[in-house]
Amino acid sequence: MSLVNQLREIIGEAARVLPGEEIEEQYLTDTLGRLKGEADALVFALSTEEVSRVMKFAHENGIPVTPRGAGTNLVGSTVPTRRGIILDLSRMNRILEVDEETFTAVVEPGVILQEFQAYVESLGLFYPPDPGEKTASIGGNIATNAGGMRAVKYGVTRDYVRGLEVVLADGTVITSGSKNVKDASGLQLRQLFVGSEGTLCVITKCILRLVPKPEKSLSVFLAYPDLKSGIQSVHAIIKANAGPTAIEFIERSVVELGEKFTGGTFPCPEAKAYILLTFDGNAEQVQQNAQRIQSVAEKTGAMAYIPLTDPAQAAEIWKVRGCFVKAVEAVSEQEPVDLVVPINQTAAYIDYVHQVEAETGMHMIAFGHAGDGNVHLCIIRGDRDEETWKTELNEVMHLLYRRAHELGGLTSGEHGVGIAKQPYFFRNADPLLLQTMRSIKDALDPDHILNDHISYLK
Amino acid sequence: MSLVNQLREIIGEAARVLPGEEIEEQYLTDTLGRLKGEADALVFALSTEEVSRVMKFAHENGIPVTPRGAGTNLVGSTVPTRRGIILDLSRMNRILEVDEETFTAVVEPGVILQEFQAYVESLGLFYPPDPGEKTASIGGNIATNAGGMRAVKYGVTRDYVRGLEVVLADGTVITSGSKNVKDASGLQLRQLFVGSEGTLCVITKCILRLVPKPEKSLSVFLAYPDLKSGIQSVHAIIKANAGPTAIEFIERSVVELGEKFTGGTFPCPEAKAYILLTFDGNAEQVQQNAQRIQSVAEKTGAMAYIPLTDPAQAAEIWKVRGCFVKAVEAVSEQEPVDLVVPINQTAAYIDYVHQVEAETGMHMIAFGHAGDGNVHLCIIRGDRDEETWKTELNEVMHLLYRRAHELGGLTSGEHGVGIAKQPYFFRNADPLLLQTMRSIKDALDPDHILNDHISYLK
Repeated sequence: MSLVNQLREIIGEAARVLPGEEIEEQYLTDTLGRLKGEADALVFALSTEEVSRVMKFAHENGIPVTPRGAGTNLVGSTVPTRRGIILDLSRMNRILEVDEETFTAVVEPGVILQEFQAYVESLGLFYPPDPGEKTASIGGNIATNAGGMRAVKYGVTRDYVRGLEVVLADGTVITSGSKNVKDASGLQLRQLFVGSEGTLCVITKCILRLVPKPEKSLSVFLAYPDLKSGIQSVHAIIKANAGPTAIEFIERSVVELGEKFTGGTFPCPEAKAYILLTFDGNAEQVQQNAQRIQSVAEKTGAMAYIPLTDPAQAAEIWKVRGCFVKAVEAVSEQEPVDLVVPINQTAAYIDYVHQVEAETGMHMIAFGHAGDGNVHLCIIRGDRDEETWKTELNEVMHLLYRRAHELGGLTSGEHGVGIAKQPYFFRNADPLLLQTMRSIKDALDPDHILNDHISYLK
Repeated sequence: MSLVNQLREIIGEAARVLPGEEIEEQYLTDTLGRLKGEADALVFALSTEEVSRVMKFAHENGIPVTPRGAGTNLVGSTVPTRRGIILDLSRMNRILEVDEETFTAVVEPGVILQEFQAYVESLGLFYPPDPGEKTASIGGNIATNAGGMRAVKYGVTRDYVRGLEVVLADGTVITSGSKNVKDASGLQLRQLFVGSEGTLCVITKCILRLVPKPEKSLSVFLAYPDLKSGIQSVHAIIKANAGPTAIEFIERSVVELGEKFTGGTFPCPEAKAYILLTFDGNAEQVQQNAQRIQSVAEKTGAMAYIPLTDPAQAAEIWKVRGCFVKAVEAVSEQEPVDLVVPINQTAAYIDYVHQVEAETGMHMIAFGHAGDGNVHLCIIRGDRDEETWKTELNEVMHLLYRRAHELGGLTSGEHGVGIAKQPYFFRNADPLLLQTMRSIKDALDPDHILNDHISYLK
């Protein structure tokens, strides 16, 4: 019997198993669409049991499996370069429970982040992880330990995962974690699964932590005469005990790109760098916290301190801030980078980026999360032909990652390693650490059927 | 050559390797001293390299190793029931670095919690994890993912571990993590090591996250006519967006024990239950947050709402709160329990404890962290003879853990499973989950030399 027919027997509904030739291109790639794979079958799973049956079958037959949710990843994690089965979880998208008494929710992995956020907020609750891509699925957020701007105050996705039901490579279904807050009862396997990029298991149910919805949110805009003084203000901002939710840095040159794209404008155009802060919490305290930053702004040489109390102005500024990647992509292909450096190295790192720009002629824009050292770069292709782009991009990427690692940084803060960042991750990782990761992969997926294209575990 | 002589050769300093007959009793047990093991050698390691050499030797010769820090654990994790080598890390107790610019510290595992807390606070920084036992070592805190009262606001030890240098069972030294805030760069092995009770590796260096020191702290005392209304106020307290640091519950009967022991008194002795809250942060906000609780207190039927602005009164109340275990131990042996239930089940659970007391005649006192469902029980031996105590304790423990699991709870919130809680953990754990944990143990420690007396991984 053909693979597709076997899978149709397992699933019991032919329409949810597509043969290779009927698989649309979007399922063979990531959100960038540059890397493309091929597969023998695409399965739309509806339940844990189906996922388990598919995995058992794949395990017994040594067939590669590429799980996917909303497919918004940026590093090729969902590109089936080894063929086999694409296991789509986007239809497992029910919010199964919101338990207001324990401040938890139970959701299927295909639930879309922004829909989940909106739903819990309608109940007076709040799911803090807030990666830029709001149409990502929760399962994918967990698989990459997605971060986002609010990490300064609230932490990242990991910090909101109370428990996971997963299907292992051989079809075994286990649940690690629960609605309980504390847990010192045995190995915390879910902590290993968070951020494992689909290499160890397929996530089928997520027990998430919620918090009460903050009463108010307020943004504060700071302008600086140069990037260094802007970024150096971050230490004083953190020290001020004002509990900011987000601390973003943006260079003037990048803002101009955004202004052109959206038609909006930033105040203080004579500045060279901006720091955007948000505060949330209860009403009086948001106000007080924002005020605390005023004296920090003065001490750190800010040219402007503007609490964005006018909602129209706030919206305009955030619109500009939110459009950078799209603004770049409107004029050129780009390669996204989300490396991390220790927070005191951010300014030095951006300096280096400019140096590489000057030396190589490769234009880049940088912005990101100054509160946690997560630097986002768009490396801009411009009019380079395919071969030149590939060669020059690789050279630039090599320089960028090498410098990040020299400064004590890491390959990825929130996107993951996937396929695209693997060479750079690989080059900078301790072989003994990689070997230990591999021994865990071997233990849980001895035939390496799960996302084996993420090959640092090979 | 004898084992001791071989180890002396490895360590190069005879005085730091003791033969079995010279090992003092404190090294053969935990802080309770009830379970006792035997060992062939005790090694005081001073460096990662020494730990690595000892582990390599033990691995090659299949010798069990029991790592230990300050030895304050309560569940027998440091009891060498399989003989072999006791690997003492208490002399690796240097604070290697406090990096104020990145809000991190690097310490050796033997650093004592309270010394570390005091040191970073002297620098205007703060290490939030605050388990009850302040003389524990940081390495042990990490190995049990120690919690404590401040978990409501700040989370537990895991949330402050940025990176770990560990020695694996075969002597391999790896570092997982760094000073960076975000990390989506490969499997996060340190997350697996946190809470693994010394079964997967020996922690030799800890990169810890710090936060700015809160400017002020304030406690608030609430009294309730019964435990149920007291504990039910917790949901409203959390919902009030007042960001409490700790939410403790205490029954009147337990307070009386503490009052007798310390000579201090609680206000409102006619109450049946108390909720003790702390707030920390910047000065004006601590005040406002405490005030927010006043209206919650009224709505939830509190008999008293007392902000403890008088330091003498606050100290007296916290002295009583802090002495319960010692007050019990002054009159009887006791068995400590630190199970967890979902926060909305705490009241139901304490009701059940009273029911078991009534039915079995076993006296227990209950107190704990109402903000996270972590219930501490002292089961009091009284004048039972050894055999009766063993039998009846086991019966009561079985009932207690069974009920916790029926309510969706867990065996341990912060002490760990160790030896003492193993039968109860085992009975309530999913065999497939245990099997998955074991496959990880097998991958990292194939000969099971590390803490193999914690036998759920066998």
